[in-house]
Amino acid sequence: MEHGADLLTYKDRYDGELIDFSSNINPLGPPKGLEEVLIDSFKSLIAYPDIKYRKLKDSISNYLVCNKENVLVGNGAVEIIDSFVISVKRVITTTPSFSEYEKRAIIHGKPVIKIPYRDDFTIDIDKLDVISEGDLLILGNPNNPTGLRIEKDQLLEIYGIIKKSKAFLVLDEAFFEFCPEDYDSIQIFKEYGFERIGIIRAATKFFALPGIRLGYGCTSPEWKKEIEKNQLPWSVNTLADAAGQFIFNDREYIEKSKAYIDNERIFLLDELSKIEGIKPYNTKTNYILIKLLKWDEEYVFNIFLSKGILIRKCSSFKDLGKNHIRVAVKDRGNNLKLVENFKRII
Amino acid sequence: MEHGADLLTYKDRYDGELIDFSSNINPLGPPKGLEEVLIDSFKSLIAYPDIKYRKLKDSISNYLVCNKENVLVGNGAVEIIDSFVISVKRVITTTPSFSEYEKRAIIHGKPVIKIPYRDDFTIDIDKLDVISEGDLLILGNPNNPTGLRIEKDQLLEIYGIIKKSKAFLVLDEAFFEFCPEDYDSIQIFKEYGFERIGIIRAATKFFALPGIRLGYGCTSPEWKKEIEKNQLPWSVNTLADAAGQFIFNDREYIEKSKAYIDNERIFLLDELSKIEGIKPYNTKTNYILIKLLKWDEEYVFNIFLSKGILIRKCSSFKDLGKNHIRVAVKDRGNNLKLVENFKRII
Repeated sequence: MEHGADLLTYKDRYDGELIDFSSNINPLGPPKGLEEVLIDSFKSLIAYPDIKYRKLKDSISNYLVCNKENVLVGNGAVEIIDSFVISVKRVITTTPSFSEYEKRAIIHGKPVIKIPYRDDFTIDIDKLDVISEGDLLILGNPNNPTGLRIEKDQLLEIYGIIKKSKAFLVLDEAFFEFCPEDYDSIQIFKEYGFERIGIIRAATKFFALPGIRLGYGCTSPEWKKEIEKNQLPWSVNTLADAAGQFIFNDREYIEKSKAYIDNERIFLLDELSKIEGIKPYNTKTNYILIKLLKWDEEYVFNIFLSKGILIRKCSSFKDLGKNHIRVAVKDRGNNLKLVENFKRII
Repeated sequence: MEHGADLLTYKDRYDGELIDFSSNINPLGPPKGLEEVLIDSFKSLIAYPDIKYRKLKDSISNYLVCNKENVLVGNGAVEIIDSFVISVKRVITTTPSFSEYEKRAIIHGKPVIKIPYRDDFTIDIDKLDVISEGDLLILGNPNNPTGLRIEKDQLLEIYGIIKKSKAFLVLDEAFFEFCPEDYDSIQIFKEYGFERIGIIRAATKFFALPGIRLGYGCTSPEWKKEIEKNQLPWSVNTLADAAGQFIFNDREYIEKSKAYIDNERIFLLDELSKIEGIKPYNTKTNYILIKLLKWDEEYVFNIFLSKGILIRKCSSFKDLGKNHIRVAVKDRGNNLKLVENFKRII
C-alpha cells in the first residue's frame, strides 16, 4: 500500500461504510458555497482552462500574501513536486517521508540520496554535507508520516547550506494550515526572492478537496519559468481552477478549521498516549504516527478494518519497519471510535 | 502562440465575445445530463479519486470495445503522451504535427528525430528507416494541423516496420470520432494484443470537454504497467472521472455529432475552396489547414481578430512557415461568418 485512501480496494472486506483514517483530510469538509461556484463554471467546460491560470494565481497570491510572479499551480502538489524534480541533477530526501519524492526522481532518472532522520525524527544537519551544486533537497514541512515541522532556526541554517552549495530546497507544506502558527515559510523566503527555494501547498488536505486536484506554490521567477516549462499544459482542470478562485476567501472557515483541528489533535494525542501497547509520536499537524509495541501493522490494520476503520500501514515508508501505523485527526465522534477500538484491541 | 484557445490573451483586443476557431471542439457541446452527474459527484470531492480508476476504465473499455486490462486514463491526452515518451529511448515525430510530442521529449531529455511529411502531408515510408530498437514513433491520426488520417494499408505497413525494429508506435487519435468510419485502430490492434502500440483518445474535442481534462487510451498490459508507473497519482480528478463514467453511454449524441460535423466539414471545405487567395487542404476531421496565397498569418489573424474571430496561426508548427492558418469546423452560423469574413478580406 503505497498511498492511503484506497477505500475501493478494502470496501468488500467490511459490510458498511468505512471510516477513512488513512487519508488526512479536514473533517469539516470544503468551504460552504463551493457547489454554487462549481455549478456556475460548468458552462466553461467547453473551453480550455486559461493556459496561464491568471485569475487562479491572483487568488493564490492574495491568500499567500506574495507576488503572483512567484506563484505556481498544479494538478495536486505532486505535479509541482514532479516538475521540480525534472529540473535538477540529483534528489536528496529524508527517511521516512512521502514516497513520491523518491519515486518521481527514479522515474526521471535522477540519482537519489536518502538521509535518515534522527530517532526523534528531527534533521541531523551534519548529514547534509552530501549536498552539492545542482542537488535538490526535498523536505516535508510538516513531514509525512512523522508530523513534525522544521524549527525556524534550523530551516534558516539549512537554507544557508543550500545557498552556499548552489543547491535547491523544496519544502512540501501540503499540511501547512493544520500546524500551529510558529512561522510562515512564504513570508520568510519572500524576503530572499525565493532564491533556490520552492514551497508547495495544496487545497487537498486543509480545504478537504482531494478529489479536485489543486496544488500551488511559490518560487523565484527564474525557477518558476523552468518549472512551468516542465508542466503539462492545462493540468489544472476548469473546476479546480474555479474552486481555487473561491475557497481561499473564506477566512472564517479557515480560522474555524484551524481551531477545530488544533483542539482535536490535542485530544486525540492525549487519549492515545494513555493506551498501553502503542506509542503515539508528538505531531504538529492533523495526523499521528503510532509505534505498535506489541503487534505488527498487518494485524492491527486487519482488526481495525473488521471494525470498519481504515488506518495507514507505514512499512511502505522507508526505515519504519512493520510496526508503525498512521491515523488522521478527524471529528470528535470518529476520533472517539478510534480510541475505543484501540482500547478494545488491548 | 504554441497552442490555440488562448482566449484570455486576446479578449482585450475585441469589444465583444470572441468566436473561437482556434480550438477544435464539437460545436454541439457536451452530452445532455452531464451537469446532473457532476453535481451528484460533488459529495465525492472530499475523497481522493480511485487511484486505479476502476469504474472509469470499465466505462472506457465498454465504449472502445476492448479489455479493461488495456485501458489507460490521463489528465488529457497530453499526460498519456508524456508518459509514453518517458518510457522510451528516442522519439520520432513527423512535421508538421502537434508541438507537444517534441516538447515532452526535450523535457525528458530524449533525442528527437523529425521526419517531414510529403508535400501532400502523407508519410514517406522510406524515411522510416531511421527507426531502431527502443524508438517511439508518434503519429497524429488524424494529424494536427493537417487533418489527414493514415490509410489502413499504410498503417499496417508502418506497424510491420515498428515490430521488425523492436520499436514502439503511438497513434494520437484525439480527433478519432470526427473522422469518417474507414477503420478503427483499436479493433485492428486488439488482434495483436496492442503489442508495441499505444492508441490515445480524449473526451476533449468530440465530447466538447476541454475544461475537464480526460484522456484515455489502449496499450498492451506490459506497456500499460510501465506507463501507469510513470503517471502522477490521481491525475484525473473526481469530476472528470464521473464525466467519463457517463458521456460514452450517450450513443444518440455520438451519432448526431458525427453526422453534424461530417456535414459541416463538407460545407465549409466547399465554401472555402471557392475563395480566391486561400488554399484549404482536404481534411478528414473537424479542422481545416489553409494556405494563405497572398498574405502572412499575422495579417490574416489580426483582421479576423478585429472581426471577433480567433483563428490559429500555424508558424509554431514545424515546416509550415508563416502563411498557414487552421480553423475549426463549427456550427453553421459561425462557419458562415468565417466564410463571409474571408470573402470580405479579398
